[in-house]
Amino acid sequence: MIQYTRATVMFETTEGLSVYVREIEALEGYERPQAFGIGIATTDSEGNLLDAFFPVPNYNCNFTSAAIFATVLGYRKGTNTYTLTRTQLSHILEHFTVFDGDGKTHANIAAMKSILVGFPKSHDMREIIVSFIGAEGSDEGPVSLGDIYLRLHLLSHRFVLPNTIKATPGAIMPKLPNVAWTSEGPIAVSEVNTRILRARLNGDPLRIYGVDKLPHMTDYVVPPGVRIADSARVRLGAHVGEGTTVMPSGFINFNAGTLGEAMIEGRVSQGVIVGNKSDLGGAASIQGTMSGGSKVVVEIGDRTLIGALAGTGISLGDDCIVAAGVYVMPTSMISVFDKQGNLKYGTQAYKLSGENGLLFKRGQEGDLEVHPNKKAVELNPILHAN
Amino acid sequence: MIQYTRATVMFETTEGLSVYVREIEALEGYERPQAFGIGIATTDSEGNLLDAFFPVPNYNCNFTSAAIFATVLGYRKGTNTYTLTRTQLSHILEHFTVFDGDGKTHANIAAMKSILVGFPKSHDMREIIVSFIGAEGSDEGPVSLGDIYLRLHLLSHRFVLPNTIKATPGAIMPKLPNVAWTSEGPIAVSEVNTRILRARLNGDPLRIYGVDKLPHMTDYVVPPGVRIADSARVRLGAHVGEGTTVMPSGFINFNAGTLGEAMIEGRVSQGVIVGNKSDLGGAASIQGTMSGGSKVVVEIGDRTLIGALAGTGISLGDDCIVAAGVYVMPTSMISVFDKQGNLKYGTQAYKLSGENGLLFKRGQEGDLEVHPNKKAVELNPILHAN
Amino acid sequence: MIQYTRATVMFETTEGLSVYVREIEALEGYERPQAFGIGIATTDSEGNLLDAFFPVPNYNCNFTSAAIFATVLGYRKGTNTYTLTRTQLSHILEHFTVFDGDGKTHANIAAMKSILVGFPKSHDMREIIVSFIGAEGSDEGPVSLGDIYLRLHLLSHRFVLPNTIKATPGAIMPKLPNVAWTSEGPIAVSEVNTRILRARLNGDPLRIYGVDKLPHMTDYVVPPGVRIADSARVRLGAHVGEGTTVMPSGFINFNAGTLGEAMIEGRVSQGVIVGNKSDLGGAASIQGTMSGGSKVVVEIGDRTLIGALAGTGISLGDDCIVAAGVYVMPTSMISVFDKQGNLKYGTQAYKLSGENGLLFKRGQEGDLEVHPNKKAVELNPILHAN
Repeated sequence: MIQYTRATVMFETTEGLSVYVREIEALEGYERPQAFGIGIATTDSEGNLLDAFFPVPNYNCNFTSAAIFATVLGYRKGTNTYTLTRTQLSHILEHFTVFDGDGKTHANIAAMKSILVGFPKSHDMREIIVSFIGAEGSDEGPVSLGDIYLRLHLLSHRFVLPNTIKATPGAIMPKLPNVAWTSEGPIAVSEVNTRILRARLNGDPLRIYGVDKLPHMTDYVVPPGVRIADSARVRLGAHVGEGTTVMPSGFINFNAGTLGEAMIEGRVSQGVIVGNKSDLGGAASIQGTMSGGSKVVVEIGDRTLIGALAGTGISLGDDCIVAAGVYVMPTSMISVFDKQGNLKYGTQAYKLSGENGLLFKRGQEGDLEVHPNKKAVELNPILHAN
Repeated sequence: MIQYTRATVMFETTEGLSVYVREIEALEGYERPQAFGIGIATTDSEGNLLDAFFPVPNYNCNFTSAAIFATVLGYRKGTNTYTLTRTQLSHILEHFTVFDGDGKTHANIAAMKSILVGFPKSHDMREIIVSFIGAEGSDEGPVSLGDIYLRLHLLSHRFVLPNTIKATPGAIMPKLPNVAWTSEGPIAVSEVNTRILRARLNGDPLRIYGVDKLPHMTDYVVPPGVRIADSARVRLGAHVGEGTTVMPSGFINFNAGTLGEAMIEGRVSQGVIVGNKSDLGGAASIQGTMSGGSKVVVEIGDRTLIGALAGTGISLGDDCIVAAGVYVMPTSMISVFDKQGNLKYGTQAYKLSGENGLLFKRGQEGDLEVHPNKKAVELNPILHAN
Repeated sequence: MIQYTRATVMFETTEGLSVYVREIEALEGYERPQAFGIGIATTDSEGNLLDAFFPVPNYNCNFTSAAIFATVLGYRKGTNTYTLTRTQLSHILEHFTVFDGDGKTHANIAAMKSILVGFPKSHDMREIIVSFIGAEGSDEGPVSLGDIYLRLHLLSHRFVLPNTIKATPGAIMPKLPNVAWTSEGPIAVSEVNTRILRARLNGDPLRIYGVDKLPHMTDYVVPPGVRIADSARVRLGAHVGEGTTVMPSGFINFNAGTLGEAMIEGRVSQGVIVGNKSDLGGAASIQGTMSGGSKVVVEIGDRTLIGALAGTGISLGDDCIVAAGVYVMPTSMISVFDKQGNLKYGTQAYKLSGENGLLFKRGQEGDLEVHPNKKAVELNPILHAN
């Protein structure tokens, strides 16, 4: 173990630092983390963490920073979270001196400097933390609040796609406390009613935005090129693609999202991915894996339109349309038509899962039909300019 | 009338206080109130009440407190609200001295102390009020804003179930002012545009969360064991059962709610009750009594699932399913099938109201069918951990 | 050009001012503007406008004020926006002295006085602006952020009906920046993540209400006689009629709205107008012109009910009902029945567009039917009292 020995040494050349980092990385058992970040956590009055904010999450990069954090904190591998004192943070920051200058301060350094300057000295229900997520092979999934929030940040910063990092509901929900998200920051549910009374007495009202295990994404990060008409409709951990608009009836859950331009006026459930230039109509529903019993992860392709008040429990490929008001359940019996409009056969909808170019609609008699989709969906270019 | 005579006497033993309380309760015409509470009301610039916050509503209990409030304020029975001076509050508080100590301060005492200490001396558009709701027989329903807010608190604190206290729309809505609910607290609608301008000029923006006769519940109370992803979706007066999650597309109106664990992603209309371990899918609709003309109060049993984009205008018993996208209107013609899948007969949906174990779905031809429900609804245990 | 010459003259009689105004209006090329207003704009750190707030928009009135603004600012005709110094504002204000007194200060004067007094001297990321919209003939549509916000204010102040002033999505959306709407006011999207970090460090959290080209209406104006349960559901530029209630599942877009009493629990898309005493059920959908490809502007008449989870892509006249869960697409095949319940013929739904007194429902076999509507829709009077 070399930590603390050289951690207070200030490197004056990048060469010196490189040698030092190589030494750390050569340590037996050391494995480069898949992700890491320095963050600010909020605690309740007993010191339990309520949330964590990572201004600069690092994903499969900045391994020098990782090695420096590791040596000061004693990290070797795997998924773990450390609480830092201001002194430890100062020590870490000294290592970065050689990188810092020429007006090109690295984002991690800027974040650390901000925290060091801005952070109050006395205990104020906030902590400085560093979380690591182990290399892809060694990451056995969420361990504690710190790395869960780091995973959620990686998704919302668009470093990873939904379902590609371990962040399933079963893995994260039991490890997250239920928190009141308020105008004074996160508050423990057990303390919130007292705070409501106190705020009333002070004449400075406390606003509760939600009471939930997950906060709203935009209080942590606004990824570039998105519009979100009502911030309460996107949970932290949503992957909101560049060019996506989420309208007030839209919703994107954590570990779910869009890949590019998309108009979202309905619900993108946990695990669901919506492709580029696709359109989810008002109140439309994409069945998730959390409620209703389904185990299949639904995916929606590119240029696909799910109409208002429509829904799907099966995956849709590219260039599909589900007409407004039509719900396609996996077990729905459906009549398949050819290009000439002739009925070919009947089948269950799940057998069409993921196919391209389909138009689902209700026939004249009210039964469910599928036809080849003659027109591609054109997204209105005005609406999609972010 | 003994009020004001002994109200300034400080009791040094619980015995002395008991005698005093018995004297009050023996007064001719005195009736123990069904509920009461001390609260903080906000006023407009002319002194009209806009809202009231009761930190500790009392329901069929704490009759000693009730008697002390009664004697100082001149209350005998029925439903009424009194405005208190700080001096009156001090007098009331003195009566409680004997109860106060041993680290077990009663919640009412704590609330009064907070108000006395925290409340500004000069008029600041807030008032201290005490509201009583008369005994069950004598309560002829809402009288004024004070007791209406007390009723809404009783519901949201889960002291009473929906439809068991007089709080119907017809009784409360005409007596409530329309209010702008803002980051600076409740503001009269007639004054809000001036306040928006003033805040703009000060460079300290005023946020309007809503303009409505009813506020959002969580600004008044967060009952234990609930998750509410977007606070704007639950009105004060909602009864949110322990273990209930309200998602961003969910909604619970006043005098409506859930009895226990429930996943609410659709709308629980006024008067509606949803049983334990039931699931209301995305944007699903339970018909209320306010809009659309229906007079029947709909009830949903335990372990019942209403799918996404589904709706019901009839009551559902336990272990029912309404398939996603299916709307069951009371007058809908419906085909009834037996366990073997044989069509038995046709009927109107309202005749099945409240029955257990039914599965409502759309048949292959698009017609409405009901079958025995072979599988019970299993709520995802992860999602329902609050 | 007389501007600046007499702009510093203080008029002591309305007569003198009238002469002056007549002189301005007689200038060659001068045209009375259709609308104008003095407002406060927010800028980003580079001085680009993010939004504009007009406390008193003027529409086809107050031409004296218009002339005075015009002469000081050099306006002649058309649509334009000017940035004012405090000195210019003082000069303008002096012209109004003769109007100011007898306790009847004109709203424009009051607004200017407030701005002059309240506005900080140093640059603080806010500007004083005056926007003009050219006379109806000369207005070629939106030019810049200033007049776009003035148009949106005219709609939300109910000075103009949707579709009667040039404010189509194609005209306004490309000219509006995407903005983070926060508890500290509008912030440029490129600057918001830095501000989130700074606020975290200060321990004074920044709340993001939305990230969008359009803000929420009630942060700019609360028109009289409306209820809006969740402010995030109504965009600036919505025309919310007196007596309208927008529930948490409701939504009104810009350049869309209601004409009078209405219960809105579904989505009123861009361009859509809903008549008096009409009712849009929970999550119901009125097809707009922005998404889904339709070019036809849908209109809904008086006393018409669109049930929960229902939708329409065709216009509806007065006294119509679309049953809950029924979606009427323009191309839907529909069976037309007479009063006696006899099937007359089949047709496509768009041929019934705008007809009065129709009841759309699903027949027993799941097909779409239209019948004469025997009962008029009665709105619940309690719910509609604002």
